Amino acid sequence: MTTAETDTEVYLDYQSAKPVDPRVVEAMHPYFFEQFGNPSSLHLEGDRATKILEKCREEIARFIGASPKEILFTSGATESNNLALIGYAMRNKRKGDHIIISEVEHISIHNIAKYLERNGFEISKVPVDQYGRVDPKKLENRITEKTILASIGYGSNEVGTIQPMETICQILKNRGIAIHTDAVAAEGLVPIDVNEVPVDLMSLSSNDIYGPKGLGALYLRKGAGIMPIIMGGGQERGLRSGTENIAAIVGMAEAARIARDEMSEEAERLSGYRDRLIAGVLERIPKAYLNGHPTERLPNNAHFRFEAVEGESLMLSLKDKGVSASTGSACTSKTLEPSHTLVACGLLHEEAHGSLEFTFGRFNKESDVDRILEVLPGILERLRGLSPLYERS
Amino acid sequence: MTTAETDTEVYLDYQSAKPVDPRVVEAMHPYFFEQFGNPSSLHLEGDRATKILEKCREEIARFIGASPKEILFTSGATESNNLALIGYAMRNKRKGDHIIISEVEHISIHNIAKYLERNGFEISKVPVDQYGRVDPKKLENRITEKTILASIGYGSNEVGTIQPMETICQILKNRGIAIHTDAVAAEGLVPIDVNEVPVDLMSLSSNDIYGPKGLGALYLRKGAGIMPIIMGGGQERGLRSGTENIAAIVGMAEAARIARDEMSEEAERLSGYRDRLIAGVLERIPKAYLNGHPTERLPNNAHFRFEAVEGESLMLSLKDKGVSASTGSACTSKTLEPSHTLVACGLLHEEAHGSLEFTFGRFNKESDVDRILEVLPGILERLRGLSPLYERS
Repeated sequence: MTTAETDTEVYLDYQSAKPVDPRVVEAMHPYFFEQFGNPSSLHLEGDRATKILEKCREEIARFIGASPKEILFTSGATESNNLALIGYAMRNKRKGDHIIISEVEHISIHNIAKYLERNGFEISKVPVDQYGRVDPKKLENRITEKTILASIGYGSNEVGTIQPMETICQILKNRGIAIHTDAVAAEGLVPIDVNEVPVDLMSLSSNDIYGPKGLGALYLRKGAGIMPIIMGGGQERGLRSGTENIAAIVGMAEAARIARDEMSEEAERLSGYRDRLIAGVLERIPKAYLNGHPTERLPNNAHFRFEAVEGESLMLSLKDKGVSASTGSACTSKTLEPSHTLVACGLLHEEAHGSLEFTFGRFNKESDVDRILEVLPGILERLRGLSPLYERS
Repeated sequence: MTTAETDTEVYLDYQSAKPVDPRVVEAMHPYFFEQFGNPSSLHLEGDRATKILEKCREEIARFIGASPKEILFTSGATESNNLALIGYAMRNKRKGDHIIISEVEHISIHNIAKYLERNGFEISKVPVDQYGRVDPKKLENRITEKTILASIGYGSNEVGTIQPMETICQILKNRGIAIHTDAVAAEGLVPIDVNEVPVDLMSLSSNDIYGPKGLGALYLRKGAGIMPIIMGGGQERGLRSGTENIAAIVGMAEAARIARDEMSEEAERLSGYRDRLIAGVLERIPKAYLNGHPTERLPNNAHFRFEAVEGESLMLSLKDKGVSASTGSACTSKTLEPSHTLVACGLLHEEAHGSLEFTFGRFNKESDVDRILEVLPGILERLRGLSPLYERS
């Protein structure tokens, strides 16, 4: 990785993209050329492909405490979210036409909800507190006789706040409402078990656990029915057609195995960096605040707002110093809109625009924290010096 | 590859799955770990990803004579077909609700057509002659005032017949009807240029030109409008959301470059194998016939029917000898239904069931033809010896 191999580059935007773990690349390698078969074929190459496909499905099921039959492969988290929401809504519309999402969902959930609204469904958005947490009482108040599904992300890809999933599931289960969770920001960082957090559908991404891009999975609890959104040869029990991407599936399975083995140690290491960064920034930089929950947050996430400065200017100044950070979700970073997540947390537009996100990952080192603490105060001072809005106290 | 490295295994089912060319794997390699950025990110890693993404889009556009802006990346041919048909139909339904497909389309096109029928569209299927060719006159007869789209595969993934695309396009263009073609079976084997064959939409697969699986493209002519079927962060001009799979995109671009450079030589080599196999089989095996068109066929495809024997038994007997062949489309091979393509060509069910497909590819050698000609006559003789249906002449 560029960032790991040079002294001058520091990558702190793991929520936007992750390098594929070299062990994963090695595991994938034989499946490009040597074992390239199509599991639908009945010959030798096909048999080999079928065997490895099912072995990988078991490994990914194990990662979340599911049964292999409950795992469907997709082309990534966005497709998993589409298949979960559209697939469940269309299949179950006779039961009701009301769906609940939270205000801090990933942009894909918001855009899918808009699509469903245009197609006859009613969408309610449950608000969050200042830390980005869904209030279970408010969720309960949104439920109607027609509610069939609620989609609440496990952890925020922006502010890093972890939702009270067990309580949320309990409320929804009691009312017979299916639960989908986008677990992409949280997977591999906090233990996720569908027996403890009994969701019905869960979106997973391969790259977010250091597997290859272009692959995801949808956990679909036994008994939960969905309609396919991509039709064809009937792969994945007819719920997701298209020839299986075996090399990538092998990669995701290896990534899941590594995450299972190393998660607790890695989460501890990353939360150490995160806490040092948070403490250092709040101590050295005046009028700097932490966004998201102070304790119920993903171990790799440090999200700040700085008074009287644009997050984008901060990001570009950091870029000049070889530091990759983010102003929020990469998926919406090319728009000029303030982050809907930050606005939902009650930030004013100018506060949302003054925010900066650092997300640590597997290849960061302690010295990366040092580097940020070394360059960031100076950048803030310079940018604020140019700002008519900033009043020195 | 197992099949290339041992003397005992011969792989002749390239239409079901292809190994990734080692040059492609090498080209992809740096994009797993070293350059893994998200093109939506505004920092250094993101900038690098954006640059390579657009460079690859140019290479794939060049492969079919298109402009880079006319190329959308998808997760594969099946998704491209879904996006083309559902996306075009939903976007243009005010103009009309009638869609034409041919009877020899890939199973995904048939299943998408069924979905559209359930959603208010009328589907007509244009029949083919005994060689699997669409009769342009019959196509013209199917057109109504409400026809908005026709989907005719460039070449058959089963019998290998190439369609008279120029004539087909002319007829449809004259009537103002959009044309989609699934070019997956033909790409890399015959030159395809959207200036000469002026389709509006074309599905391409990465693996079918020896690129990685899990990636495809949709050619969308400037001016042709579609709706997305996967929604989210607005990537691919809002028409296909989801973080771009850069490593695979780099692979598909390299695969397209190699195909462009080597196609004419390779097509000649493969058609030599094909012709030797066809001549040898028809000469040495009684009551054996060629399916598909005698001359207008893909250079890698040899598709036979054998009287009084099951294709599946043939395939399994070949499997015992280390030979991978197919009874038809892998995508439908696990069902017991006879191939819809063969039935459309006028074969009786028992004739369709007695069919066997060989498809050559980049890593076959002349000796692979020898091997088939060595083992196949004996297998036929043995199986027919067990068959009460076979009468020796």
